[in-house]
Amino acid sequence: MPSSSLCQDETCPPYSLMDDYSEGAHPQILEALLRTNASQQVAYGGDDYCHDARQLIRDRIDCTEDEADIFFVPSGTSANLISIASCLRPYEAVITLESGHIACKEAGAIEATGHKLILVPAVDGKMTTINLRKAFQQNQFFPHMAKPRLLYLSNASETGTVYTKRELTNLSALCKELNLLLLMDGARIGTALCSKKNDMTLRDIYDLTDIFWIGGTKSGALLGEAIVVKKALAEGFIFHLKQHGALLAKGRILGVQFMELFREDLFFALAGHANNMALKISARFEQLGYKLAADTETNQVFVILPQRLVQRLQDRFRFYTWEQLDDGQVVVRIVTSWATDELQVDRFNAWVEQWTVANA
Amino acid sequence: MPSSSLCQDETCPPYSLMDDYSEGAHPQILEALLRTNASQQVAYGGDDYCHDARQLIRDRIDCTEDEADIFFVPSGTSANLISIASCLRPYEAVITLESGHIACKEAGAIEATGHKLILVPAVDGKMTTINLRKAFQQNQFFPHMAKPRLLYLSNASETGTVYTKRELTNLSALCKELNLLLLMDGARIGTALCSKKNDMTLRDIYDLTDIFWIGGTKSGALLGEAIVVKKALAEGFIFHLKQHGALLAKGRILGVQFMELFREDLFFALAGHANNMALKISARFEQLGYKLAADTETNQVFVILPQRLVQRLQDRFRFYTWEQLDDGQVVVRIVTSWATDELQVDRFNAWVEQWTVANA
Amino acid sequence: MPSSSLCQDETCPPYSLMDDYSEGAHPQILEALLRTNASQQVAYGGDDYCHDARQLIRDRIDCTEDEADIFFVPSGTSANLISIASCLRPYEAVITLESGHIACKEAGAIEATGHKLILVPAVDGKMTTINLRKAFQQNQFFPHMAKPRLLYLSNASETGTVYTKRELTNLSALCKELNLLLLMDGARIGTALCSKKNDMTLRDIYDLTDIFWIGGTKSGALLGEAIVVKKALAEGFIFHLKQHGALLAKGRILGVQFMELFREDLFFALAGHANNMALKISARFEQLGYKLAADTETNQVFVILPQRLVQRLQDRFRFYTWEQLDDGQVVVRIVTSWATDELQVDRFNAWVEQWTVANA
Amino acid sequence: MPSSSLCQDETCPPYSLMDDYSEGAHPQILEALLRTNASQQVAYGGDDYCHDARQLIRDRIDCTEDEADIFFVPSGTSANLISIASCLRPYEAVITLESGHIACKEAGAIEATGHKLILVPAVDGKMTTINLRKAFQQNQFFPHMAKPRLLYLSNASETGTVYTKRELTNLSALCKELNLLLLMDGARIGTALCSKKNDMTLRDIYDLTDIFWIGGTKSGALLGEAIVVKKALAEGFIFHLKQHGALLAKGRILGVQFMELFREDLFFALAGHANNMALKISARFEQLGYKLAADTETNQVFVILPQRLVQRLQDRFRFYTWEQLDDGQVVVRIVTSWATDELQVDRFNAWVEQWTVANA
Repeated sequence: MPSSSLCQDETCPPYSLMDDYSEGAHPQILEALLRTNASQQVAYGGDDYCHDARQLIRDRIDCTEDEADIFFVPSGTSANLISIASCLRPYEAVITLESGHIACKEAGAIEATGHKLILVPAVDGKMTTINLRKAFQQNQFFPHMAKPRLLYLSNASETGTVYTKRELTNLSALCKELNLLLLMDGARIGTALCSKKNDMTLRDIYDLTDIFWIGGTKSGALLGEAIVVKKALAEGFIFHLKQHGALLAKGRILGVQFMELFREDLFFALAGHANNMALKISARFEQLGYKLAADTETNQVFVILPQRLVQRLQDRFRFYTWEQLDDGQVVVRIVTSWATDELQVDRFNAWVEQWTVANA
Repeated sequence: MPSSSLCQDETCPPYSLMDDYSEGAHPQILEALLRTNASQQVAYGGDDYCHDARQLIRDRIDCTEDEADIFFVPSGTSANLISIASCLRPYEAVITLESGHIACKEAGAIEATGHKLILVPAVDGKMTTINLRKAFQQNQFFPHMAKPRLLYLSNASETGTVYTKRELTNLSALCKELNLLLLMDGARIGTALCSKKNDMTLRDIYDLTDIFWIGGTKSGALLGEAIVVKKALAEGFIFHLKQHGALLAKGRILGVQFMELFREDLFFALAGHANNMALKISARFEQLGYKLAADTETNQVFVILPQRLVQRLQDRFRFYTWEQLDDGQVVVRIVTSWATDELQVDRFNAWVEQWTVANA
Repeated sequence: MPSSSLCQDETCPPYSLMDDYSEGAHPQILEALLRTNASQQVAYGGDDYCHDARQLIRDRIDCTEDEADIFFVPSGTSANLISIASCLRPYEAVITLESGHIACKEAGAIEATGHKLILVPAVDGKMTTINLRKAFQQNQFFPHMAKPRLLYLSNASETGTVYTKRELTNLSALCKELNLLLLMDGARIGTALCSKKNDMTLRDIYDLTDIFWIGGTKSGALLGEAIVVKKALAEGFIFHLKQHGALLAKGRILGVQFMELFREDLFFALAGHANNMALKISARFEQLGYKLAADTETNQVFVILPQRLVQRLQDRFRFYTWEQLDDGQVVVRIVTSWATDELQVDRFNAWVEQWTVANA
Repeated sequence: MPSSSLCQDETCPPYSLMDDYSEGAHPQILEALLRTNASQQVAYGGDDYCHDARQLIRDRIDCTEDEADIFFVPSGTSANLISIASCLRPYEAVITLESGHIACKEAGAIEATGHKLILVPAVDGKMTTINLRKAFQQNQFFPHMAKPRLLYLSNASETGTVYTKRELTNLSALCKELNLLLLMDGARIGTALCSKKNDMTLRDIYDLTDIFWIGGTKSGALLGEAIVVKKALAEGFIFHLKQHGALLAKGRILGVQFMELFREDLFFALAGHANNMALKISARFEQLGYKLAADTETNQVFVILPQRLVQRLQDRFRFYTWEQLDDGQVVVRIVTSWATDELQVDRFNAWVEQWTVANA
């Protein structure tokens, strides 16, 4: 892991645990960009690196070129809006959690492509078959209602939880029964697959979804996500990339990064580190008697803290205040990443402990 | 300029003169990415590098933060579709050349945001006030016709020609008269401003347009374009970036690149090199008696060649066949870039000369 | 009221109390169409009848041509989607009740114009200032969230309740505070204004909203709604009509109908009849001890009935089963209209009473 | 034909020959609306009249319910935008004449659904196979160009000419070869089928297209068009109606009108009258030595007249000035309709003759 020299001086800027995209790229990725830089390559994703990256990902999934196409796009919003716009006819709707990224954090990007979202409450940050079936049944008054056609879910979820193989198998079966496509947003699929709670392989995810994407931006790349599309849905997909500004002239820069992430195990190693750092933080919180607002299954820690501790920590660390509780306590979100410095984690834990002991 | 060792062996792959985005980034840009990589930064364009890059561009234009906003996006298609979607109401239309990039090469990206294109024939690759006025007048049967509201043009143009200050001043004045906004696509604004025919500064372009963008992708960056938007049109602009998937989490990678391009004169030095290489090629063609299909004002050469010469050159160089002429001759397009190796240009010219002499 | 001869025979088709658009138009309206039929008129809403209808509506509101424009469209969906598309920029969102017509019954028509809906739970079928403010506050994480910009509400509401002047005044004030536009869907504004609970004039509604529309389809017309748009929002509105297929060549047929509805008091007389018929039904239900699921404030009755009574009634009357309750009882919706035959209402009430007595 | 008493007085308003939608509906249609008015019917097109009208149209075509669906919409713009939006995926484009209605007179309605138009010059107001193939070939640079997927044409054309069976057969065959759907805009299909030049039946049009629509608005109805959609393309079509505001609650009013138009031969009788009136006008022009700007094949006359004659005629008749010619002459467009009074035509011809003789 890249290690900044530990800044303990009060004059240092606070260390960020805000999100998993505060640094640039993992050094190996930059080195790969340097190494390939001078070679002349075909534009728009037709280059050797994209080709190799696609093959490496397919190998990891264990599928062939005839079974799935892979497209690289610059952002998660692009990945979601393009996947949905490509799969649905204009009157077809997406079922998503109320807390789903496309529902809450993408400025209406899906609606901007013309599609309705049908909102479903989450259980542990996740979709359940009961809630899915209920939403489906409540949206059948045709043609006055848009037709539910695609289930969107994220793994890891917005609260950092992961789907078990059993959960996803059941959701996938219900989708087939209801004639729904299943799209998995994999912005944090790396940490999901490296979660201690995970029991799925990339192949399982491939088998149980119609489209899913593998997030690079939050997993050590400068930018870029890889969308895995089963052949039946791949026709014309590349036009959507072009039409939405996501077909980069120098597509190579996405190819090179995914090539490096999947050449060996870098992608998973980085996700594993992020998860470990989060666990280290949440374990300490629990030891000290604080309550978690969600299980720490990946690289996000949601913990309930007294307001005064939060203020003290904010002098030295940056993180989101997620929710003000009625009893004056606060839910905060702490996010670790491939780049999180373990020394900073130790320092964070030490501050928490020191304050807790002093205020016991 | 990065110089590959000259490959003259018949087994070498042909050297590409296809386009100006076949290589990665200028080495200084990669170095800047490396240098800034470990620093923690605010996401989504709120980082120090984007801030500095904006200031450097504003300094170059000689305008203040109160006068213009600058947004970085990953691709030229994004820059065009976001600029247009942000400026126009749904029933407003864009006037563009029939050969305009948005009309021919963006897969209907503008129409996908709901806006009609009104097409106008080009003269020397450019819009003229006569043709603009005529198109405007022919589109006034309201409300049965969409309302012309924005003039889109590219500098350099699709055929590599540049607008003179007088031409742009006249078009700009006509736009004001007709209540049209003026958007300049600057995918190749660097080569335009470095053209021997150019008599404009960046400030002139700023003064004479409402929105314009500065292309990084074709000017030595890995990716990225900088959109300069006058304050009157900037409200809500960033939502459009988000909604169209163009607001990168690690916006810093666009900031760093533009910071490097505009820190000193790199942006212009690279464009100047590209232009010089093109001129060297077209000058030799002319010396040898070949006719240009368009003046070589920037980094594109359009030349009429006999079919047999084209075939011979294609063994060693890659370039587009643009048009088959009735007399069996062919128009080819040769594009140089910041990365074009002068030794390869010399080699290209030598091959042309050798064939020409042998077939005289 | 048009009165069908009362069909009591078991062979008669069931009498419909399904909705308020099962018959054609009020006879006076058809007569007006006949009377004006042969006159030659300017197309696309430029005719004398549209002109007169606009003036009659403005007179009823007590506003001038300089203050508000009025546009006629063929359907309520058109009225809603055009009003919203015309007012909002692409990244702006609509706040609506979860039960709002645009959220539930228009097949994603608003999203199809690109706009996000933000859903808020209803209280008595209505929006409250508390819920509005909360939804607004929860949608401020910009630019990652679409920007709330317009409050959509219906009067009468989806459950037939009406807004009091105080309620609408408070909502309107909050909209101004939050910089939200206020659009009132008036598909059933006639019955709302004729409700015994109503304390507003058309002028009040005009004062307290930015756009509202007056429903003709459910108020005795063959088709057509009149959108009242304050001048500040009217620019370009007619282009939206055209672009969405709502600018009828023979706009006169909408003008003639609204002219007839507002020439004297036909519009209000018809709404009053519908309300009276609903009250007659719900009063009898209450007398017989049945519980209403919503107050009967306009022309819709929501009542909780035993399943067996529902089945018995369905042999002779058509109406919607709204919801199955857990205790085996059923919520049914009964809708009356300008055309509802009082003899059929009496017959309906008699059937209910007879069954109730027999099963007491 | 409805006959206004001939107004010859100078104080009378000019008689309109502007278009074919200046009057209301044919009296038989209004009578049918009256006759059916009180009956209770299922809403949204599920009524008996729509059912009967569909059957009558299918009988006329000689196809079954299993082969084609028929949908009624309120306007021609609706018919075009819904047909196109329903058939195409977002990146697919429409090939149309430069003079096509959707290109020139619908305020960008097609682009507003996200689809690009590819423009082709007309020959005699019509598409040719040569021009179609050329446009197709020039739009194959994928994925940078939108994919041509549908040919839109109008019969009668914008200049009133009609397609022969041979022409349409060739275009249809070419569409099949190029994998293009064929949509025929039939706003004036009645006059086309009644043209002396026509050699097609409704069945032929059905066989040679994928979707076509039968215009009611310009053929004696108050409003309404009937879209005939082959089964393969009909899935989900009704959602598009709803989503675009074209699914009328009282769909019956469209059904009743088409029932009346196709119950016997009213539709064709009205079109025949319109054609005859146009021929009477153009024949006289030719006898008097004036040159037609287009053959008068249906109900539109395009004739080249001296400016002074035009001014004289405009005191007594309303019609469009189509184009100012360089020699000071003017092309005018005269449109006749089902309602055109033959006495007014005689009067028109008399005025032309009188002026011509006086100015010989």
